[in-house]
Amino acid sequence: MAQFDMPQSDLERYAPEIDEPGDFDEFWSVTLAEARTFDRAPTVERIDIGLTEIVVDDVTFPGFGGHPIKAWLTRPAHADGDLPVVVEYEGYGGGRGLPHEKIHWAAAGYAHLRMDTRGQASGHGTGGATPDPVGSGPASPGYMTRGVLDPHDHYYRRVFTDAVRAVDAVRAVPGLDPARVAVAGGSQGGGISLAVAGLVPDVVAAMPDVPFLSHYRRAVSITDALPYGEITKYLSVHRDPAVEAQVWRTFSYLDGVSFARRARAAGLFSVALMDIICPPSTVYAVFNNWAPGQAEPVLKEIDVYPYNNHEGGGDYRFPRKLAWLGKII
Amino acid sequence: MAQFDMPQSDLERYAPEIDEPGDFDEFWSVTLAEARTFDRAPTVERIDIGLTEIVVDDVTFPGFGGHPIKAWLTRPAHADGDLPVVVEYEGYGGGRGLPHEKIHWAAAGYAHLRMDTRGQASGHGTGGATPDPVGSGPASPGYMTRGVLDPHDHYYRRVFTDAVRAVDAVRAVPGLDPARVAVAGGSQGGGISLAVAGLVPDVVAAMPDVPFLSHYRRAVSITDALPYGEITKYLSVHRDPAVEAQVWRTFSYLDGVSFARRARAAGLFSVALMDIICPPSTVYAVFNNWAPGQAEPVLKEIDVYPYNNHEGGGDYRFPRKLAWLGKII
Amino acid sequence: MAQFDMPQSDLERYAPEIDEPGDFDEFWSVTLAEARTFDRAPTVERIDIGLTEIVVDDVTFPGFGGHPIKAWLTRPAHADGDLPVVVEYEGYGGGRGLPHEKIHWAAAGYAHLRMDTRGQASGHGTGGATPDPVGSGPASPGYMTRGVLDPHDHYYRRVFTDAVRAVDAVRAVPGLDPARVAVAGGSQGGGISLAVAGLVPDVVAAMPDVPFLSHYRRAVSITDALPYGEITKYLSVHRDPAVEAQVWRTFSYLDGVSFARRARAAGLFSVALMDIICPPSTVYAVFNNWAPGQAEPVLKEIDVYPYNNHEGGGDYRFPRKLAWLGKII
Amino acid sequence: MAQFDMPQSDLERYAPEIDEPGDFDEFWSVTLAEARTFDRAPTVERIDIGLTEIVVDDVTFPGFGGHPIKAWLTRPAHADGDLPVVVEYEGYGGGRGLPHEKIHWAAAGYAHLRMDTRGQASGHGTGGATPDPVGSGPASPGYMTRGVLDPHDHYYRRVFTDAVRAVDAVRAVPGLDPARVAVAGGSQGGGISLAVAGLVPDVVAAMPDVPFLSHYRRAVSITDALPYGEITKYLSVHRDPAVEAQVWRTFSYLDGVSFARRARAAGLFSVALMDIICPPSTVYAVFNNWAPGQAEPVLKEIDVYPYNNHEGGGDYRFPRKLAWLGKII
Amino acid sequence: MAQFDMPQSDLERYAPEIDEPGDFDEFWSVTLAEARTFDRAPTVERIDIGLTEIVVDDVTFPGFGGHPIKAWLTRPAHADGDLPVVVEYEGYGGGRGLPHEKIHWAAAGYAHLRMDTRGQASGHGTGGATPDPVGSGPASPGYMTRGVLDPHDHYYRRVFTDAVRAVDAVRAVPGLDPARVAVAGGSQGGGISLAVAGLVPDVVAAMPDVPFLSHYRRAVSITDALPYGEITKYLSVHRDPAVEAQVWRTFSYLDGVSFARRARAAGLFSVALMDIICPPSTVYAVFNNWAPGQAEPVLKEIDVYPYNNHEGGGDYRFPRKLAWLGKII
Amino acid sequence: MAQFDMPQSDLERYAPEIDEPGDFDEFWSVTLAEARTFDRAPTVERIDIGLTEIVVDDVTFPGFGGHPIKAWLTRPAHADGDLPVVVEYEGYGGGRGLPHEKIHWAAAGYAHLRMDTRGQASGHGTGGATPDPVGSGPASPGYMTRGVLDPHDHYYRRVFTDAVRAVDAVRAVPGLDPARVAVAGGSQGGGISLAVAGLVPDVVAAMPDVPFLSHYRRAVSITDALPYGEITKYLSVHRDPAVEAQVWRTFSYLDGVSFARRARAAGLFSVALMDIICPPSTVYAVFNNWAPGQAEPVLKEIDVYPYNNHEGGGDYRFPRKLAWLGKII
Repeated sequence: MAQFDMPQSDLERYAPEIDEPGDFDEFWSVTLAEARTFDRAPTVERIDIGLTEIVVDDVTFPGFGGHPIKAWLTRPAHADGDLPVVVEYEGYGGGRGLPHEKIHWAAAGYAHLRMDTRGQASGHGTGGATPDPVGSGPASPGYMTRGVLDPHDHYYRRVFTDAVRAVDAVRAVPGLDPARVAVAGGSQGGGISLAVAGLVPDVVAAMPDVPFLSHYRRAVSITDALPYGEITKYLSVHRDPAVEAQVWRTFSYLDGVSFARRARAAGLFSVALMDIICPPSTVYAVFNNWAPGQAEPVLKEIDVYPYNNHEGGGDYRFPRKLAWLGKII
Repeated sequence: MAQFDMPQSDLERYAPEIDEPGDFDEFWSVTLAEARTFDRAPTVERIDIGLTEIVVDDVTFPGFGGHPIKAWLTRPAHADGDLPVVVEYEGYGGGRGLPHEKIHWAAAGYAHLRMDTRGQASGHGTGGATPDPVGSGPASPGYMTRGVLDPHDHYYRRVFTDAVRAVDAVRAVPGLDPARVAVAGGSQGGGISLAVAGLVPDVVAAMPDVPFLSHYRRAVSITDALPYGEITKYLSVHRDPAVEAQVWRTFSYLDGVSFARRARAAGLFSVALMDIICPPSTVYAVFNNWAPGQAEPVLKEIDVYPYNNHEGGGDYRFPRKLAWLGKII
Repeated sequence: MAQFDMPQSDLERYAPEIDEPGDFDEFWSVTLAEARTFDRAPTVERIDIGLTEIVVDDVTFPGFGGHPIKAWLTRPAHADGDLPVVVEYEGYGGGRGLPHEKIHWAAAGYAHLRMDTRGQASGHGTGGATPDPVGSGPASPGYMTRGVLDPHDHYYRRVFTDAVRAVDAVRAVPGLDPARVAVAGGSQGGGISLAVAGLVPDVVAAMPDVPFLSHYRRAVSITDALPYGEITKYLSVHRDPAVEAQVWRTFSYLDGVSFARRARAAGLFSVALMDIICPPSTVYAVFNNWAPGQAEPVLKEIDVYPYNNHEGGGDYRFPRKLAWLGKII
Repeated sequence: MAQFDMPQSDLERYAPEIDEPGDFDEFWSVTLAEARTFDRAPTVERIDIGLTEIVVDDVTFPGFGGHPIKAWLTRPAHADGDLPVVVEYEGYGGGRGLPHEKIHWAAAGYAHLRMDTRGQASGHGTGGATPDPVGSGPASPGYMTRGVLDPHDHYYRRVFTDAVRAVDAVRAVPGLDPARVAVAGGSQGGGISLAVAGLVPDVVAAMPDVPFLSHYRRAVSITDALPYGEITKYLSVHRDPAVEAQVWRTFSYLDGVSFARRARAAGLFSVALMDIICPPSTVYAVFNNWAPGQAEPVLKEIDVYPYNNHEGGGDYRFPRKLAWLGKII
Repeated sequence: MAQFDMPQSDLERYAPEIDEPGDFDEFWSVTLAEARTFDRAPTVERIDIGLTEIVVDDVTFPGFGGHPIKAWLTRPAHADGDLPVVVEYEGYGGGRGLPHEKIHWAAAGYAHLRMDTRGQASGHGTGGATPDPVGSGPASPGYMTRGVLDPHDHYYRRVFTDAVRAVDAVRAVPGLDPARVAVAGGSQGGGISLAVAGLVPDVVAAMPDVPFLSHYRRAVSITDALPYGEITKYLSVHRDPAVEAQVWRTFSYLDGVSFARRARAAGLFSVALMDIICPPSTVYAVFNNWAPGQAEPVLKEIDVYPYNNHEGGGDYRFPRKLAWLGKII
Repeated sequence: MAQFDMPQSDLERYAPEIDEPGDFDEFWSVTLAEARTFDRAPTVERIDIGLTEIVVDDVTFPGFGGHPIKAWLTRPAHADGDLPVVVEYEGYGGGRGLPHEKIHWAAAGYAHLRMDTRGQASGHGTGGATPDPVGSGPASPGYMTRGVLDPHDHYYRRVFTDAVRAVDAVRAVPGLDPARVAVAGGSQGGGISLAVAGLVPDVVAAMPDVPFLSHYRRAVSITDALPYGEITKYLSVHRDPAVEAQVWRTFSYLDGVSFARRARAAGLFSVALMDIICPPSTVYAVFNNWAPGQAEPVLKEIDVYPYNNHEGGGDYRFPRKLAWLGKII
């Protein structure tokens, strides 16, 4: 069925119960505190790639475990004053790519940091340069089940920490305005931006597109597409109910819904109703839980693409986000 | 088989015989002369899309039959003097898209014209706005067999003419250097750029990536993938040998190999050895025939991607082309 | 899921609300009036294809815009008196084919007109010979979205008009009984026959099999199969909600449900419960709306094939229709 | 690869060595002699299916083992004199279907017998009514490997015998001309017609389209499509080289190439170059061996469809065969 | 959808109405009585396959019609006293395979009989040696529709009878304990074990994994996967409602649900929630009907694999069954 | 094409040139020496899984880096004297599974060690328990490209070392005969056994089935199936020719062909001619290079399965290997 998930009217009301561990906040505060003990300043190295209107820096900053994380920082060549910043995270299997690729924010007067994803960058696109120096227990091909038996060991604990540290890093770069940092990303990048919005509540905005890494149990029950299907694969092999319980417990520390509940920033989402990779109910589960219980409700909007699969909003998103963010930042 | 076409060493020597009609040049000189009777100047309308470093114009110029053809023209915001120009054509099913999408050439100090493809712009991406007001005889879904029984009626006669007129158009825009115009494009866009290079020999360079629209008979015999497969589909229905002969005759006026023989510009190609959409032998058939018999051989290079399918060189191409073109232009 | 649409009991009650524009009738009365200004008599040319029991005429009649539309007219070789007529329309991508193919009605004592479909006839089967001389705006490969932004421009406005004119044409051929004309067709041909039944209420019967071109919004939401999927494709690219609204408005002039409401003829339908091309709910939406509110209810029947996909009733249909029509005509 | 088999020029010369057992002729003469001991006359029962120009008889004749085999016999309603006859065999999984379906030969003044295929008639189409009352050893789903360990037990020994007896049957029906019997069929029906042509040399013509059941070893090596793939499946399970040898020995009594060598009738073939079900080399292996060594060479022709898969010539075949047979019969 | 059938909570309550003919018990008592008139003792022939800890016998016993049915009987080499027995049936398309394959029960101190499946053993695995000497009417490729128009003729009447006779056979072999016989099998083997449990109520336990051959109508409506899809295929061709009724009547004598209602043995089931071959609702329909209405409820358990397709419990089943059966036997 | 690789006669002669680095032997001698510095004795812990004829030990031994590697050791319950040993490695994505699964060698009087594969054990089957505590640079999903830029970092350097240490481990277990150790495995397990045979020349036999991890460049050029396709994926992203060269250099330390050249043990191979996972030419490249230049040629045999895909010989292999090894050991 083309629009295979719930009807749109049900999606708009969808508020599932999500398991959230009691020590969720402690888990993450300890994690980030440890990471921040590696307090090297980011290295920022100008490179020449032949552009005349945009300048590019090759950035390295300390992520989880102090591991060096790579990123590209692009800025307009003719800027004055401290720039607002968009930190962007990449989709599953991708990396920071080549330095010239994502220059739209810079062309619009923003600074833009494009963070590499540790250990990935080899599934499509133009690669990256950040290792993940941590091994794992038995895992399915892919990244979803690395360290899945303990939230401390899980791959995305490291990635989310890298992503928080990317915000820390841009706030330390001269010429960028630490008070005006937004996060963004599509698919996995959207999921990471959710985590950052939950863990760094003072970012000014989050702009996740068709976010991944949310409401895992629903996802696994409704789609067998990868990468959620990596969890299915793992559980199809490791069938001890105690193991299954541990797997879901691990993901309960990594769920976009729980991050959404802690977010305080404005949110601009997108969702596609024919998206079998990141099913719309998993996206609405996040959106409907975004930044609740504020004295002054935050701005949150979601753009619905009824006829699209996981390409989501594609290139329609940049002008939409540029206009939206311009009103906030 | 992954590398399903000829071995690389055979590809490099591949010089097939291609049917070329005796009146090929006359056909095209008459076609272009007719189109140029519609000699309206292009309209160039500045639009604001929120970019600070790049300026964008919405361009309309007269194409085949004088039909209005849309394009985006992007330039650096801070340029001095007449700019060199890259005219780019789009892949099959795509269109000129949104104005912010392809700003890399502008960010590097070039003017860049992105031509819409008449009647397409609805298969992927972000659309376009150029109708094809001409009907056709019975045809398979798609654009390949519209008007296939007479080269005068064929869809690509119109598209190639539009593409030539795009070069004419940029040469008439103030601030652009008419002596430094290059053409480029991937897949269908590569095929169109081949046609322009053959029909407008004084462009300074052509940069076709994994070009389509070349050596049709070989393509149909070796791949059943679309869009070459549209020809197969048509011929699977219309089986009269006289019809088949007419179909091949029509394509003989539209073959990238014949355009290549007439090219005089420098050429930078790319080819992927696992490309089932535009099989490598059809690309080499063009490259090996590029701009022959010159007193001073033109610069021609081909980048080979042994492990790629039709994504070809992807984002690796822009820095490669930027560096290469910088040496020429 | 094999029977993926609603349960049979729900299908039998399915009466969805369909958008119908206020000027639907005016739109079509104007359209037909214009077409009928091209009032040439059909040309009827006897051809010899080696059959001894059946005679065949090559028919050309004026369709939309007066464009020449081709058809085959077959009759028994030994007939006396004016014959009842079955006018048949073809499935998507097909054409009138070869003159010998559909001789069953003639072998049963009927005249049979098999109308070519303009611009198609190249997707399967044995072809056709009727161009569609009208161009279109940007459209997905196929015929569904040609002219989709204005009902006046839409491809099926022309095809439905051709189909009405086919009835006009057979009524003008000597030896055929203008009072005993039925329409029939499968898939697209079924959808066209619905349109004719709504636009020419005095046909004596309509016999649509697994009809296409009905309840487009439901179809697009429940199946991603082509050709309904061409609409999905178009809307996945052209995402402006105003464009989407215009697309649905255009189809509201072309919906089998609205034609069904205007039908007055007896109806014999078929539907297949595993049909992913023309989902059963879209067929029942038509059937349940067939010829409502008559003083004397019309005969309407639907044959259900629970275990079939889009092959529907296949060759079981002819004897069923022959027996059913024999009671009416 | 689209045209995946040999180049056309190699196909035309392709003359593979085929294993043929020394007792091939004895095997078949004993088989047919046994079958003919069941010498009941066919029952011929007129049925009324509402056609006015064609008459239909429900025929039952004794096949292999004297088992009752069903067929439809159609004739023109207004015929004079003894009619020439075309005996037609069906494709794999099909049956004699409904009586009205194949009336083209009758409409052209021929008698036409459409033989049911024992035990099949349940894979597509409209069925049949002939059991195969013989069991088998372990076999893959389908009919190819039933009795595969002994040519006496093989399913096609029974089918080919039925097919020969069908010719015997029509020669015994009043109103048909026993001296003017041709055989025809597509795919499996083509393979069966090859067998009959080899076993009943005095039929006047054979018209196999894209014939199956020929050059089995080549087929299995070049395609994994069903039904040849049933042999692959069987051999993938039963791997004893002695079993494999026995399998090939069994098929050596059933190979269209050996039947071709014994044919004396005129032959009209068709082949499709993109046919992955019945690869073109297996068809040419038959055609190139057709009726060799005659004092006066027989007429043999092959129509090549370069752009078709197993649909072969489709509806283009009947007019072609009608014209060709008209010159012979 | 990954978990495509009902939610787990609905599955646990699922109690569909199943058609059961009034003469179900008579049908089977007559069938078994007839089969038992062939009262030859099983032949038991020791073979040497190089194992030192396990002994293997090649067993032949009379099945339906007295036809010889093959099986492997394995036992520990060092056993004392009469052994408990597990009789196991194979999955669709498989056979008894090679004698060394299933030695786990023997390695645990049990006797184990692995029954061949007549006529199959050629779809995967390592084969078998038991013919099915009975022919059939028209049937789809496969075994599901052989004899489908009369329960007396249906293939599974023969197979289920063989399976009952396998229990009779092991009860006649010296060294085995006739009072401690359990039945087991996966998929088709599970379905067969259900039948035996219903027909031989004094087996001590049944251990069906992801059983096939149950609740056919539900299966056909919810999945189009083979082998249930063979029924769909048959009914898609044979469309007379009377034929359809007869098909369902035939299967009503062969339905696992009806056998479950007659079972008296302890039952250990498994089901997989992503199983598209044997959908979970068809398994629960059996489990929820298992051995009802006993004075003392029988032990019945079902293991649920939420993330598995038709591999079900795979190798997890043997230790689970060994432990469970150890408590019973 | 079914048999898609070279013809059998070419395969038997296929002797490709393989790049082999000059320091291949030093690389491995250093690697193994380092690993052997972790010289803990294996822990061997008896577990009870309910078998009466077989005893099972849970073994842990130090692998690469001294990391603990798990394995199951099975033996006959009633054995006398030191047992010959078969060490077996698993296929890609699998692990040591459950302790009862592979008991055939034990049932035949052998000891059998089934080594877990570090970090895998989550793709199919029943899992495992051995982490891979080493991280990696950017890599495609899977294990093939982890550490692919330096042979010291590559995943298979660790796995092959584990495998050598498994042989060391069994040689240290009381009751096993260190002079009679053979290695075996299918697919990845076959590839690993090749490596061990090259690195531990005094094993008495190697029995690789359809081995993987050999002649990587050929594999990548001829198949796009996983897991070789992981290399393709990586190279499709990382396109710098220097990177490509480094990738092939890394694999040159890991190629089964180079290990074969160093083998001295008897070899029993199997190959399947329709194997698209491990194409037959890559298997013959190993077999044709097996243990060359010996004064007394070693016994080497290869069993060819012409009609099988990657299931290769399946269960046919154990009896074949048991008989063959019995003659050697």
